[in-house]
Amino acid sequence: MVASLFNRLVRKVVPPASEAARAGRHARRAIDAWRELLSNRGEVSGAAVAHEALNAYHELPLSARPAFFSLIASTFAPDPAALREACEAYIADASLPRLTRLQEIAASPLQKLCQRLNQTPGGTAALIDVRKHVLAGLADHPDWKMIDAVLGRLFNSWFNRGFLTLQRIDWHTPAFVLEKLIEYEAVHEISGWRDLRRRLQNDRRCFAFFHPALPDEPLIFIEVALVKGISSAIQPLLALDAPVTAPEKADTAVFYSITNCQPGLRGVSFGNLLIKQVAQKLGEEFPRIRTFTTLSPIPGFTAWLARNINDIQDQPTLDAIKALNTPDWPQQPALAASMKAVLVPLCAHYLINAMRDGEPADPVARFHLGNGARAERLNWVADTSPRGLKNCAGMMVNYVYHLDQIENNHEVYVREHRVAATHELRRLARHCVLAART
Amino acid sequence: MVASLFNRLVRKVVPPASEAARAGRHARRAIDAWRELLSNRGEVSGAAVAHEALNAYHELPLSARPAFFSLIASTFAPDPAALREACEAYIADASLPRLTRLQEIAASPLQKLCQRLNQTPGGTAALIDVRKHVLAGLADHPDWKMIDAVLGRLFNSWFNRGFLTLQRIDWHTPAFVLEKLIEYEAVHEISGWRDLRRRLQNDRRCFAFFHPALPDEPLIFIEVALVKGISSAIQPLLALDAPVTAPEKADTAVFYSITNCQPGLRGVSFGNLLIKQVAQKLGEEFPRIRTFTTLSPIPGFTAWLARNINDIQDQPTLDAIKALNTPDWPQQPALAASMKAVLVPLCAHYLINAMRDGEPADPVARFHLGNGARAERLNWVADTSPRGLKNCAGMMVNYVYHLDQIENNHEVYVREHRVAATHELRRLARHCVLAART
Amino acid sequence: MVASLFNRLVRKVVPPASEAARAGRHARRAIDAWRELLSNRGEVSGAAVAHEALNAYHELPLSARPAFFSLIASTFAPDPAALREACEAYIADASLPRLTRLQEIAASPLQKLCQRLNQTPGGTAALIDVRKHVLAGLADHPDWKMIDAVLGRLFNSWFNRGFLTLQRIDWHTPAFVLEKLIEYEAVHEISGWRDLRRRLQNDRRCFAFFHPALPDEPLIFIEVALVKGISSAIQPLLALDAPVTAPEKADTAVFYSITNCQPGLRGVSFGNLLIKQVAQKLGEEFPRIRTFTTLSPIPGFTAWLARNINDIQDQPTLDAIKALNTPDWPQQPALAASMKAVLVPLCAHYLINAMRDGEPADPVARFHLGNGARAERLNWVADTSPRGLKNCAGMMVNYVYHLDQIENNHEVYVREHRVAATHELRRLARHCVLAART
Amino acid sequence: MVASLFNRLVRKVVPPASEAARAGRHARRAIDAWRELLSNRGEVSGAAVAHEALNAYHELPLSARPAFFSLIASTFAPDPAALREACEAYIADASLPRLTRLQEIAASPLQKLCQRLNQTPGGTAALIDVRKHVLAGLADHPDWKMIDAVLGRLFNSWFNRGFLTLQRIDWHTPAFVLEKLIEYEAVHEISGWRDLRRRLQNDRRCFAFFHPALPDEPLIFIEVALVKGISSAIQPLLALDAPVTAPEKADTAVFYSITNCQPGLRGVSFGNLLIKQVAQKLGEEFPRIRTFTTLSPIPGFTAWLARNINDIQDQPTLDAIKALNTPDWPQQPALAASMKAVLVPLCAHYLINAMRDGEPADPVARFHLGNGARAERLNWVADTSPRGLKNCAGMMVNYVYHLDQIENNHEVYVREHRVAATHELRRLARHCVLAART
Repeated sequence: MVASLFNRLVRKVVPPASEAARAGRHARRAIDAWRELLSNRGEVSGAAVAHEALNAYHELPLSARPAFFSLIASTFAPDPAALREACEAYIADASLPRLTRLQEIAASPLQKLCQRLNQTPGGTAALIDVRKHVLAGLADHPDWKMIDAVLGRLFNSWFNRGFLTLQRIDWHTPAFVLEKLIEYEAVHEISGWRDLRRRLQNDRRCFAFFHPALPDEPLIFIEVALVKGISSAIQPLLALDAPVTAPEKADTAVFYSITNCQPGLRGVSFGNLLIKQVAQKLGEEFPRIRTFTTLSPIPGFTAWLARNINDIQDQPTLDAIKALNTPDWPQQPALAASMKAVLVPLCAHYLINAMRDGEPADPVARFHLGNGARAERLNWVADTSPRGLKNCAGMMVNYVYHLDQIENNHEVYVREHRVAATHELRRLARHCVLAART
Repeated sequence: MVASLFNRLVRKVVPPASEAARAGRHARRAIDAWRELLSNRGEVSGAAVAHEALNAYHELPLSARPAFFSLIASTFAPDPAALREACEAYIADASLPRLTRLQEIAASPLQKLCQRLNQTPGGTAALIDVRKHVLAGLADHPDWKMIDAVLGRLFNSWFNRGFLTLQRIDWHTPAFVLEKLIEYEAVHEISGWRDLRRRLQNDRRCFAFFHPALPDEPLIFIEVALVKGISSAIQPLLALDAPVTAPEKADTAVFYSITNCQPGLRGVSFGNLLIKQVAQKLGEEFPRIRTFTTLSPIPGFTAWLARNINDIQDQPTLDAIKALNTPDWPQQPALAASMKAVLVPLCAHYLINAMRDGEPADPVARFHLGNGARAERLNWVADTSPRGLKNCAGMMVNYVYHLDQIENNHEVYVREHRVAATHELRRLARHCVLAART
Repeated sequence: MVASLFNRLVRKVVPPASEAARAGRHARRAIDAWRELLSNRGEVSGAAVAHEALNAYHELPLSARPAFFSLIASTFAPDPAALREACEAYIADASLPRLTRLQEIAASPLQKLCQRLNQTPGGTAALIDVRKHVLAGLADHPDWKMIDAVLGRLFNSWFNRGFLTLQRIDWHTPAFVLEKLIEYEAVHEISGWRDLRRRLQNDRRCFAFFHPALPDEPLIFIEVALVKGISSAIQPLLALDAPVTAPEKADTAVFYSITNCQPGLRGVSFGNLLIKQVAQKLGEEFPRIRTFTTLSPIPGFTAWLARNINDIQDQPTLDAIKALNTPDWPQQPALAASMKAVLVPLCAHYLINAMRDGEPADPVARFHLGNGARAERLNWVADTSPRGLKNCAGMMVNYVYHLDQIENNHEVYVREHRVAATHELRRLARHCVLAART
Repeated sequence: MVASLFNRLVRKVVPPASEAARAGRHARRAIDAWRELLSNRGEVSGAAVAHEALNAYHELPLSARPAFFSLIASTFAPDPAALREACEAYIADASLPRLTRLQEIAASPLQKLCQRLNQTPGGTAALIDVRKHVLAGLADHPDWKMIDAVLGRLFNSWFNRGFLTLQRIDWHTPAFVLEKLIEYEAVHEISGWRDLRRRLQNDRRCFAFFHPALPDEPLIFIEVALVKGISSAIQPLLALDAPVTAPEKADTAVFYSITNCQPGLRGVSFGNLLIKQVAQKLGEEFPRIRTFTTLSPIPGFTAWLARNINDIQDQPTLDAIKALNTPDWPQQPALAASMKAVLVPLCAHYLINAMRDGEPADPVARFHLGNGARAERLNWVADTSPRGLKNCAGMMVNYVYHLDQIENNHEVYVREHRVAATHELRRLARHCVLAART
């Protein structure tokens, strides 16, 4: 019986010999179908061969995928001998013909293969799917990096910003697309059609980028609330029964959620452009709107705090941090007030000064501050969801996009590794117990 | 006065110092605008900077273009020192990280720049325009080859077949697009709207490929006549007053004209795919149509004959060739008959056996036979237009696309350098006076 | 305090004097805005005046509507004196000019007014809304009949079948429209988006008629299941977790729900045409589908039975009818079997023989049999929903549309007041205890 | 031979017995197909029967049409006996049921028939075609008036302004529609595609009304030039090589041509609404445009002058009128000047004071002044086309649409039969030799 349990365990982790062999056979059959794409037949009957290759991929059992990816990496890499030769030739004479030849040899056959695969409907979607799985398994399969690199370069070319279309998403959008928003939303979960509907009403806006080759698939989408004054808490914005206000009277657009939909397109950056295009569009439609801001989570704050707690000796600070474990602390005014005095400066410090590789340690801060936005205001008890309380003690931050300061902020960011922030936030950050250490 | 004439001559060829200087200044100013695309500002404010760069290009005076292109080639090429280093590193260790680094360094900065330029509407069109001019001046400016190569690679990626849409062109198509057909048609000139209209009536079909980034610009288009039996002459197909027949009764689709619209996309091959997709579409719509054929010019025949005339001693052959200079020879039955006996075999020989670099010498033959079509029939007195008489003694040829033989034909073509042709054509070719020489 | 209670009661039923007066003032103000449409100003500035009239209607408090409708009926009726004169003139001389004049005078000014109201966006929708309320209040306000008649005639002209477009509804349809299906569905309630989604999957079809002036509003929609064999029960068709089958393999299309969406369009018949167009469309897409049938409720059966129970002396029959009150009788096999033996013949008799004004007494039977369909089969325990058990003892009926018998069936229906039914149904009907009475 | 000539003449006018008989048979067969629409079959199989009826109409030989129309008029008229009875019943009791019955009986069966005919694609177009021919033959066939009346009423209902869509026509419009503009243009002939193209460039606008049931058929279209200052001559506006100016700089929109496309829709007025909608649209797009004016022909001037010449004794006036026969008079400055002094006041008088049935005698004046426009300015030597010289001595007039005065002008027009005109035009009119007579 112990053996049987062991067997069952093993079966889960390592497929038994016969299964592994079967997976290997599947993978080899699929690789044959893909290799065909680079043959003469692939050149002449591109669409038909691509169709077969696509089918071979889709019929691959889950267990055969790793073997298949590894075969891709080994089969369709540049020929090292030829490439070495081309390198030597270039070193000897850096002429244009030799450069061109070097470039050609250096390009993986995989790249050509992908362009042929793309001839059949569904080709692009399949390649995005491949990269999604490759990225997920990269840690365990360093040889897949080559696939990631080739697809990453191709996607950067194909999903070039000039080929994207910005579309408004509203209640007139096909259900097929709306359903995906519910599925993909990564920041503040959409609980169903009723929730979605509230987010698409007249005082809300939602925009997405689409690509002509994937007409039913949003690449990225952003949700905006048109309000008066900069919002300081997320739950009122998301409330299903929040009264719908007149968008013409709003003076502020709050970007409260931005979601990348395609893990396979990681590294192709859409977000920066999307925010700016949406800000411009809203500014034209609603001339009264002057402020474009986010209401953003601070996903890395408490984890950072945990890593740095040993550097803190100050007892009130330690008490406040410890109080985060008190259930329902936001409902206890006195306690919450004492925590606020300590945690807000700490968080301001984290946002502005905590760096990794010269960039803000917090990933959301890195994105917006890197885009040229300015950290504007920290909001206490702004996100009382379990995730909000856990990750950032319920705080949220506004990053403001002043369209005419973005460039300059970015310049300073790149040149001096310094982020844009208000005086108030800097003042807060200076009062934090860890400030001296930076 | 002599001096003045000399001056005028010079002015035509070489711009005078001041003008050249002005052109240079223009070119440098434009290159500055383009360089900006690779700066931090280009990264943050991509669309705005791309817009400026585009304007700088469009405002460039004609005379400043050559200087501008040369500046592109020298400014945005890969750094030779860095590339040499990357080559040496790869030679020492052909690992994936070093390959990746080599690929990155080998990629011209121009490529990144073009992707940024593409962020603004009109970017793609401008780059196609650049390549058009670069290709036209390549002979005089070998340094521009680098631009050609980078753009060629990018276009092959962007205009990937999977991103193209096949659209039927008919009388419901916007005038804006129809006008371009009149302008672009390269094989049998469209004399105006009335001519175009006849070509779009119910027994004719026209299809084009479009790309989402150039929605108003056909990339390539093909014109088809739906008829009974394989057409043997072009003028009856083009006649404005040809009676419109019922397409359901046709058994043959004659592809009588195929035109690439964008010189700047040279090398991105659309034609092969277009023919096959259109053949498939027509086959589905009209199940009676079993034969898909071209009615094609033989543009290189008489030039080839002129180059080979010294090898011909046979007097009747020489007489027939000489008779091509007789005005109105097609109207003289006896003369024409004697010419036919000589010229048809010669032309069959030219089509099937005359090779250049292992491929058919005639460019149209190279295209269709390379696609897997079969040379079917030579038609005497098939194109009596001045161009038809001049280039190929009024003959035209049918290349038939048997959808189930294409692959095999192509295979043989690539492996054995042998083209597909009917027995009759081979028989004719064997009887030609030059046949022995091959 | 008694007085106060009385007051409160009164307030509910009859608006107190002041309120009634206020409603009257509102109604008169609105009628003034509508009268303006027939003035010179209405002629010149039609759209602007129509816009004002529309606003006046929409701003009308609920309590003022009855007064408003009555004012419409009295204000915009034909002038009786003028009409009498035109009648006399026609009686004296039935010439074309006098006929024309008679027609013009007989046409209510309301008709002209409505055509002007229609100049502003939303005009058609508002008039449909007016008729909806007028129809609902007709019993209490016989004077409103004139409004009903005028709008009915106009709608029959405007919603002429030639102006309708048939659209497939599926998961790519805008949410805005889908939401209305959930709201409107009248036969088998749609419980939410999940339920709707199952009804739109690949083995189901949904079609609706739309009118260009109401692009977001379905007028009528039909739901179809593509299955093997004629369905005999509704719950399996509606089950959320019913496996999705391949529509190409289906041989039967079951129309299981048809809903008129606009009460204000009552009397404009869309259903007949919709069924036939959908049957034709499905027949073209799926050549294997040969049977087009409904699975229909019999809404009037138990009510009819109750009205006729005094004519029944047969004790087993009376027992079976009484047993309908037994809770969960469908779960008691013996009881159900004895009930079936009695109730199925009774229901067959009801469907085929029970008439009102020469047409089937059951409204659904009247619709389908009047369209030329044939009563095919009675299904026992076919609809176990509370409504199904209550209205028709859980039975449902299939009406089959044989496209080539429809005309003949209708002919017989109209000429001989005889409905089309299978032999089996007729046989059943003959065995029922009430059969002799007809 | 005389007999033969006579025969040929007769054949042209009266079809010989056998031909007339054949036409009669054709007409009766078609009327049978139409009668079917009112039968039971027409009710059940509406679309199929309508399709047959449509075919019967389209296959009708030209010679059989008159007989067919007369059969329509006699076959589908209301029943006089029944209508008389309904009249008497209404006279006796003017109740709502009797009014309703009267309305029903008074409505021609033709109306119902047309609504059924409309169920098949092409139905609306066929009915418009019927009315076109009916209108053209009305003078000779007074019995057809009944058809005209019924269709006129139906069209007024179907082509209700609320159902029309305003579309901009430009170079992106399908050729199919553009071709119709060339064909239909009634005011200033479009000489071909080049001419059309100039009229669609950036400083010109063209708009049309379409109806959803006739998506490829413009109902009416208007051509506008965006210029500086009110245009005083038509040829410069129409010149093919007129430089294209920037529309943003224009201050005036000149409506220089408005064409009703469907003679069968005569009496359904689109023009008034089209002008106002286009003026509003242009005003929104180009805020600098403050003046909306026509540049209109005066088609009835010289004919009116001819009718009134006997009332003129003044010799200079008679000389000026006589001089209109001088070829090339516009090229003779002295002569032209003397003519202008006489003809401009006469024309001003004609425009403002010449009335027929209380409305301006000139049809174009009647249209624009009836719409509430104001006669602004008479332009001398404004239209030098043969038609312009012949009809109105080369003069044209501007009617200005002041959007805020239209209503008031129309009011005065209807109430006091007085047209809106500038002081200058009134002053001119007073100085004309015929002025005293009015």
